[in-house]
Amino acid sequence: MLLRQLFDYETYTYTYLVACEETKQAILIDPVREQMDRDLALIEQLGLRLVYILDTHVHADHVTAAGPLADKTGAKTVGGGGAGCTDLVVQHGDTLEVGSLRVEVLATPGHTDDSLSFRVGDAVFTGDALFVRGCGRTDFQNGDPSTLYDSITRVLFALPDDTRVFPGHDYRGHTMSTIGEEKRWNPRLAGKSREAFIQIMDNLGLAPPKHIHEAVPANRACGRAAG
Amino acid sequence: MLLRQLFDYETYTYTYLVACEETKQAILIDPVREQMDRDLALIEQLGLRLVYILDTHVHADHVTAAGPLADKTGAKTVGGGGAGCTDLVVQHGDTLEVGSLRVEVLATPGHTDDSLSFRVGDAVFTGDALFVRGCGRTDFQNGDPSTLYDSITRVLFALPDDTRVFPGHDYRGHTMSTIGEEKRWNPRLAGKSREAFIQIMDNLGLAPPKHIHEAVPANRACGRAAG
Repeated sequence: MLLRQLFDYETYTYTYLVACEETKQAILIDPVREQMDRDLALIEQLGLRLVYILDTHVHADHVTAAGPLADKTGAKTVGGGGAGCTDLVVQHGDTLEVGSLRVEVLATPGHTDDSLSFRVGDAVFTGDALFVRGCGRTDFQNGDPSTLYDSITRVLFALPDDTRVFPGHDYRGHTMSTIGEEKRWNPRLAGKSREAFIQIMDNLGLAPPKHIHEAVPANRACGRAAG
Repeated sequence: MLLRQLFDYETYTYTYLVACEETKQAILIDPVREQMDRDLALIEQLGLRLVYILDTHVHADHVTAAGPLADKTGAKTVGGGGAGCTDLVVQHGDTLEVGSLRVEVLATPGHTDDSLSFRVGDAVFTGDALFVRGCGRTDFQNGDPSTLYDSITRVLFALPDDTRVFPGHDYRGHTMSTIGEEKRWNPRLAGKSREAFIQIMDNLGLAPPKHIHEAVPANRACGRAAG
């Protein structure tokens, strides 16, 4: 499995390029519209063919490149149904074949109600459900801390401890973690009850994302509209 | 081999934590002083014991955490001799044993005259000699484009094509590359003669690093002095 992690400094967003090394079929997870040319150049230089563009959810902090990338490459957009324009709406338990790779869809709602994680081999791409020593906020887009608690503790923490965790964002310079590490060291979850987690999440006191009112409608249009 | 890539957003610097999974002995490459607490927490959470702190060179854009980390942990500082306080001055061909890992020292001067790369298994940590689709500048600290051309084309490009390249910085959101990719796609080197490379490097027109006059003396003191 070829795996490249890419970062957008403006929005602290990680994009992942994952490919089957034999067939050269590739997927992009959570591409950022402003980084489309960078990502297309890398795909071309590595001799890959993009087949799916996956969004873990309808983002509030950046605009997806999914639609424009699909238009340019012929790849299909994939998501949980939060955007009406998605080519392939998937749900928990679905799988995508990408050459010899198998992409397993895990429903991990709570940050938003349409949030998915994608498991490929020993790696799981957790979007904004689980971060390194943190997790996505739950105070907009039908976010719900109790639901997120279930997604993390019953779905993600049920994966093997050595599963590599690749988050949708990081704000402290971490690039990855493992399920075992997060079980043990995530300050919002390790040894915390559901009630304690809900209390933490309800008292974060975060400002709203700067561009939420532009980003959400733009993402519901798969990044094809202005936003 | 355990490998964690860490990023400092202020200076676009990558720090690498590399460890032997059996003995839990670890090294840190190019730690940033402001990130010391983050890095120490990660080392502790992973149950590692820091044995060496390596600087690829005397940096001009950030201050190393090497000295303070050595004082806190008992690990030895390692470098190419640009800082008089370094515990262990190494040169091309030297090796360090870190549990079952073997760290091979490669002299790759040109960005600075003391620049080293470190090879561990299938990975090479190239500092500011080779970046993803770029390279370090050569216009201060005895930098020399002709020397850097030799370091890249004769030392780094002599490694197997599938060697993973982990750079000291990135400014476009890339995290890694391979030697094969850089041979083929690095715009300053692919198909470029020594003369063409020198011309590119002599005409970059970059502003000096903002904090060079504080960072260089602070790094010559292994990050123990104010800077």
